[in-house]
This record gives sequence, structure tokens and C-alpha cells, in this order.
Amino acid sequence: MRTSREMRLISRPVERMPSDDDVKMIKVVVPDPAAGQVVVRNLFMSIDPGSLLRMRDLSKVDIPNFEVGAPMWSDAVGEVVESAAAGLSPGDIVWHRYGWRDYVVADASHFHQVDPALYPSLSHHLSFGLTAYVGLHVAKVRQGETFFVSSAAGGVGTMAGQVARLCGASRVIGSTGTPDKARYLRESLGFDVAFDYHDGIRQHLPDDLDVYFDNAGGSHLEAAIDALRPHGRAVLCGGVEEIRSGEPRAPRNILSVIGKRLKLQGFYTFDHPDLFPRFAEEFPRWVRRGEVVIAETIVDGLENGLTAVLNLLRGRYLGKVVLRI
Amino acid sequence: MRTSREMRLISRPVERMPSDDDVKMIKVVVPDPAAGQVVVRNLFMSIDPGSLLRMRDLSKVDIPNFEVGAPMWSDAVGEVVESAAAGLSPGDIVWHRYGWRDYVVADASHFHQVDPALYPSLSHHLSFGLTAYVGLHVAKVRQGETFFVSSAAGGVGTMAGQVARLCGASRVIGSTGTPDKARYLRESLGFDVAFDYHDGIRQHLPDDLDVYFDNAGGSHLEAAIDALRPHGRAVLCGGVEEIRSGEPRAPRNILSVIGKRLKLQGFYTFDHPDLFPRFAEEFPRWVRRGEVVIAETIVDGLENGLTAVLNLLRGRYLGKVVLRI
Repeated sequence: MRTSREMRLISRPVERMPSDDDVKMIKVVVPDPAAGQVVVRNLFMSIDPGSLLRMRDLSKVDIPNFEVGAPMWSDAVGEVVESAAAGLSPGDIVWHRYGWRDYVVADASHFHQVDPALYPSLSHHLSFGLTAYVGLHVAKVRQGETFFVSSAAGGVGTMAGQVARLCGASRVIGSTGTPDKARYLRESLGFDVAFDYHDGIRQHLPDDLDVYFDNAGGSHLEAAIDALRPHGRAVLCGGVEEIRSGEPRAPRNILSVIGKRLKLQGFYTFDHPDLFPRFAEEFPRWVRRGEVVIAETIVDGLENGLTAVLNLLRGRYLGKVVLRI
Repeated sequence: MRTSREMRLISRPVERMPSDDDVKMIKVVVPDPAAGQVVVRNLFMSIDPGSLLRMRDLSKVDIPNFEVGAPMWSDAVGEVVESAAAGLSPGDIVWHRYGWRDYVVADASHFHQVDPALYPSLSHHLSFGLTAYVGLHVAKVRQGETFFVSSAAGGVGTMAGQVARLCGASRVIGSTGTPDKARYLRESLGFDVAFDYHDGIRQHLPDDLDVYFDNAGGSHLEAAIDALRPHGRAVLCGGVEEIRSGEPRAPRNILSVIGKRLKLQGFYTFDHPDLFPRFAEEFPRWVRRGEVVIAETIVDGLENGLTAVLNLLRGRYLGKVVLRI
């Protein structure tokens, strides 16, 4: 009899950071698959700020929440270990959204088979680069533009800077939280400018920025609004400054959005499924050719998942953070 | 020999409200028109918040400023009194951008002849409705949508609410600064909901607002971000709350722009000349048929122009404010 650990949400940390008291690791029996179902053993799952937000309350914004008392979920990659469905066999590698557990049993239609040879590591199937790709399409980055991304050494930022270059950006600028990460961005990922934001932001930005990819909000968004040229665009993807401080971090120069006719646009990756086939075609090729370098941090153990989310928000990691299960 | 009064900017009120010390009324001799020029006597000019902004410093945002020492300017309607140009004759009515003076002499190409029969009053040729029209096109208001406009009893707001209805909005909501104006919006302009914002904003808004037309910024923008549905849009046209208070008024819920994938877009009417011919065809017809009611306040005397701008910003008027010269 197979057993599986799964992480359940016990209470919602709505206006505070979560702690171990908000989650509980439960051991459950893995049932046999019914007709049409498969059993998948998870190998990797994505650690991202979304997990924190889904622990809180997203009901107002039309994005699904974790349910209190139910297992949490997230992007994951696993191996089929038992199948009662046509089309999937033991040994197949699948992408799905049932992270935060060792095993999952569900209808085969919930799993998407991937080609393990596509990327150097199975973890890379965790939609590496997809959010950056979608954001750059929403921002419509064009040939010759100047591009700035905050949290540039994170999972989204490392990709956004490199993909912006491939979209034609002629100058790529990134902010991050340590001098070491800034050096990595310049030396390993080809950023033209990368800096530690603790030293200030504005002096590193030109005054004719075309596009800002916002993962930080707060002082970053304010500095970027000042730096954007008339008709410049910002795509809003994350607000780690506010999440970290627990306080609203409002840009005080919102009138410049009118004066400069800026466009600020929030986006959510899964609103743009039309882009996924193009991404699936382009991105692996970029990785294979070395045009995109994957930066990744692997953390071990389901029991360390929540800590990894918190450390991610504290800026402790480099690149995309993956939990090995 | 003809003389003309003109209002010149003497000093820039950059971080304060302007006073009479910032402007000076000068009497100048009106020269004879050179070949290709006409002499125009101004009849009406537009009073709008833009005059305040042009007294300050717009150099960073690619919108022309008033020059210190030179006459101010704004949209105006006048009558040709002398012509040395083909195509314009004494008695012709023209629209132009040489307000803040009694007479102007310039090349005939700077004046656009209008049909005086088009509107009930010559003042209505001062681009009444144009900013609202452009903003609604930028916002792409569609059939059946819920629409909210702030400063709804102002020159832009009165038009935006009515034109939104003509664009198909099924519910039109406006905020204003007195109960009397709110009643006027409901009873004379057909707003479904209109309220005095001093009583609070949020409780008057639905939680599935489609479009917000922002003339106020600050607490209005914050309330609207909370009220917008996922994928809702805001067009940012003005920030009278901040202009009035002299302090930055930042919306504290900017993270909701991400969560709800909102689009916030600043716009400037004269970036959209492609819409002007359509406006020129549609708008006079709406007025003629009574589908759009024009709300207008006329102030007399060039010497009162600056006071009128300040009173406008204080919310003292109803509808579009026009200076009769």
C-alpha cells in the first residue's frame, strides 16, 4: 500500500506572513487509479510567490485560491507510476498542477506529457520562462528598446532580461538585492546594467526607458514611472516590496502616468493560453542554443516547501526556485 | 491703431498654486497682417486645468509649456476682422490655439474655419466633448458595460458620462463635489448614479466596474481600483485631488492592478488626431438631436481668466468653463 505526504492549508495568513502553523503535512493512502486515471509520483514542484498569495484570499480577483483543509497545489513535474488510462504509461513524464504532495491520482486529462529530452533537467518543464515570455508579449517589447526588470535575479527576472534581448531590446537593465547577484546578471546573463537596489534605483535608470517589467512595486515602480519616456509601458507582474513589508507601497508619482501617457498593465500568465504553443516552440530552442541561460536553485524536501517560499520572498535565492520531492 | 491685451506668464508656480503675481496683462499694438496672415478677434477661450499645468513645467513629458515672458495660449474661438490670406474673410469664425489675448495676428494656416450653425453657441466649438470622446475610445467602452467617471460635473465629466451611454454603457456612475451637482447629473444628464464624494466613494460603486474614467486620482482612483472587475480598465485623464492638495496622492492598492490584471492608461487628447474627423461628424449630431446635453459656465473678461482656472480646480463650476473675451 502506497502512502503519500501532502501539505494542507490549515489557516489563511491574510494580513501577515505565513508560518508553519498555517500548514500541516498529512499522510494519506494513495488509492488505486479508477478507469481513466493515472498515479503520478512528483519529482519537482515550483516555488513561487503565487503560493503565498493563494494561501491568502484571491476570491476577489478571479484567480483560484488554496482551500482551507485541502492540499495546496502548484506546477509540478512527475512520473507516471501506474496507469488505468489510454495514452499514458508508467515512466512517462508529465507536467501538471498537483504540487505540494508526493503522489497524485487523477484523470489522465489533468496531466500533460512532456518530452524529457527537451531540456537539460526535468525541473525545467516547470514553465521556466513562461511568465517572462507572456509579460514581454503583453508589453510588446520592440527592436531597439530599453528594458528594465526588477527582481532581475529571480525566476521571472532572469528570464525576462534574456528574452527581452531576444525580442530585440538593445539595452537590458536589472535590479537585484546583492552586488553578487548584480555581477551574475552582467557577467553570466548579459545584462547591460545590473545593480543592487539598496544603493538606490533612479541613478541607474535612463530617462527614456521604454518598458518596465515590474516584479517589485513600491520604490521600484515609482522610479520606473519617473524613468519611462512618454508613451512608455509597464507590465505589472509582482509586488515583492509590498509583500515583504506588509504595508501598501504606493507610487507617489501617479500623475506622471497621465502627463507621459504611460500604460500600466497587470497580467496573469494563464490568461494568455494563445501564447503557450509559440512559447513551447521557441523557448526550448533558445535554451538548446544557449541563447537563454537557465538560472535555478533546487531546494530538497516537501517539508521545506513553505520555508522555501518565504526565503524566496526574502531574496535569498538566485534564479527559479524548484523543490525536489 | 488697434491694441490688444494679452496675458503673459511672468514666473512658474512649480510647486504651488499660481497667483496674480505669476501673470501680467500687457497692452500691445496689433500689427497689420503680412501676406498670408489674418487678424482674429477672440470671442471665447477654454478654461481648463491644462492652463495650470502649462504654467508649471511639462518639459519632461513632451507636452508644450507656456514660455516665461510670452503670452499664454489655449483653445479659442474668434472672428476674422482683417485678412491678407486667401480662404479667410472678415466675419469668418475660426478655432485656434491663441487664447489669453484679445487679438491675434498669424498665418492663416493656424486657424480652422468652423460652421457657426453647427452648434447653438460659438463657445461650443472649443473642443467641447473631444477629450471625453478620445478617452472613451482609449478605454474601448463596449455595449452593456458599467462606467464610472470622477469630476463628473466638470467639462470632461459631463461629456464622458453622456458619451459613454452613447457608446453602449448600460450603467453610468459619476462623482462630484456637491449634492446639487449630483442631482443635476441624475436629473438632467441621465446618470444612473451620481453622488457627492464627500460622503465617501466606495459604497456608491459596484464591485464589477468595467471602466473608470479618472479625472481625480487619489482616493477616487483607489476606490475605483477596488471596484474594477478582473480585466477592468482605467483611463487616466486628470488628478484634481493631487493638484488641489499639492501633495502626492498615491493609490495604496496597486497590487490589485496585478491581481485583477487591470490596465491603467494615461492619455492626451492631441495624441489622437485620427479620431478628430469622426468626432467632428458624430458629436454635433448628438448635440443637435439632444442626445448630448451641453453643460457650460461662462465667465466674463480676460482679466478673470486665471481666477477662473483656480475656481475650476476648486470645483466651483458646473460643466465646461468658458471665458468670454
